[in-house]
Amino acid sequence: MLQLFLVGIGTGNPGHLTREAEHAIRGADLILLPHKEDNKAELAQVRLALLQDLSVSDARIAHFDMPLRRQQGDDYGCQVDEWHDAIARRWQDCLQAHLPSGTGRVALLVWGDPALYDSTLRIASRLGLGSGQVQVVPGITSMQVLCSAHGIALNAIGAPFLVTTGRQLRENGWPQGVDTLVVMLDGQCSYEQVTEPGAVIYWGAYLGMPQQILLQGPLAAMQQVISSRRQQARQEHGWIMDIYLLRRDGAVAVGEVDKLRSAG
Amino acid sequence: MLQLFLVGIGTGNPGHLTREAEHAIRGADLILLPHKEDNKAELAQVRLALLQDLSVSDARIAHFDMPLRRQQGDDYGCQVDEWHDAIARRWQDCLQAHLPSGTGRVALLVWGDPALYDSTLRIASRLGLGSGQVQVVPGITSMQVLCSAHGIALNAIGAPFLVTTGRQLRENGWPQGVDTLVVMLDGQCSYEQVTEPGAVIYWGAYLGMPQQILLQGPLAAMQQVISSRRQQARQEHGWIMDIYLLRRDGAVAVGEVDKLRSAG
Repeated sequence: MLQLFLVGIGTGNPGHLTREAEHAIRGADLILLPHKEDNKAELAQVRLALLQDLSVSDARIAHFDMPLRRQQGDDYGCQVDEWHDAIARRWQDCLQAHLPSGTGRVALLVWGDPALYDSTLRIASRLGLGSGQVQVVPGITSMQVLCSAHGIALNAIGAPFLVTTGRQLRENGWPQGVDTLVVMLDGQCSYEQVTEPGAVIYWGAYLGMPQQILLQGPLAAMQQVISSRRQQARQEHGWIMDIYLLRRDGAVAVGEVDKLRSAG
Repeated sequence: MLQLFLVGIGTGNPGHLTREAEHAIRGADLILLPHKEDNKAELAQVRLALLQDLSVSDARIAHFDMPLRRQQGDDYGCQVDEWHDAIARRWQDCLQAHLPSGTGRVALLVWGDPALYDSTLRIASRLGLGSGQVQVVPGITSMQVLCSAHGIALNAIGAPFLVTTGRQLRENGWPQGVDTLVVMLDGQCSYEQVTEPGAVIYWGAYLGMPQQILLQGPLAAMQQVISSRRQQARQEHGWIMDIYLLRRDGAVAVGEVDKLRSAG
């Protein structure tokens, strides 16, 4: 029987790896390692270094090229669907080539956690496996690393928070009834369009990696600072992954350990 | 100099421990271990077992009793504030007794992640330490374990989700503009009051522990099933920790690997 492990590996810091993740990777007969036709070769390197660190032999790694997503047309949903189908076919090609008996443990390394803004579960659902054949191993997400790096809590006491995307923020603005937003997948600096008076921003890029950058402060004062730092870093590294938390004025940015008490 | 590590340890499964967490615990000169005057002695045992597993000697563990929170009065904010002050004093008593020089590495083990519905950062802020003296080590949260155990994604593609509490759900109902809610800290089965047509629920208790229970299905059909299972489990174990995800009809519960494809 085929066993598929979707393994969250955190955000590039080997320290984020859980024992469960390490166990799943070490125990895998095959590891599927995607390569993208973009500037993120560095990220593939991080995964490879992690596998070497875990003494995974090259013979157990199946490299494959990620297909490209059709960009023409305004049928975004269909494009994503076709793309996921194509990725699932690459997985199956790898499985047939490396595990022709159809038996074995296969691991896929997923940035962050497979449950959060990730398609691996959706692609896995195309393989026609039973639920017992797919196991998800949770991993540390960028929003957790963002908070730990800034020394802040995600939520104010007993209060909700919304996890959303740059597109949602641009199209729908700051939603009612929630003072804390975590914004992911924002390639367009959507925080620049937020005019909420007194809001604060906690921004982070390359979280958990050696090139990590952190910026925080009143949103109005930080919008241009972050955007120009972001552009500069992106040019320097050829890619960027970033995330930020926005908090409305009045919702104390609890957890700022060095500021709370001196202010109180 | 004193170094304080707030270490997320996941939800009771030793497999949730990250390398970073393990490193912080092994390297600590002192570990502060709270004990509560309630039925959760089992949880203190889980922490102790984890420390033994990491070869932490008893001499490095400072046990302390958690103070009780004043329950009288309708000044909830003040009660919490006083309570956090009292806990911080217990920490300081431990530090003075065990590290009289004021120098050393101190670790606190936090369920889940210190950034998520947890007071440890707020209590730490009362010690008057500098930001460089407090480090947060993220841990796997119950919402991640809930999703991995059910084999579902937190979010629909590109869609937001709200993380909230039982009280918020009771008082404010299902918020507009968001189809997925993760509900934490709900001792009162607030899902019973949700009448959203066609909503589905994914519920889990004791997540990651041997006694883990999972239930899922259409909310209307599951409300009583979950409440009676919950009550039964609580009687059996003397305590319960649970969490659930609610999804509105139409927001496909993507990631249900064994159902998606057979339905499509």
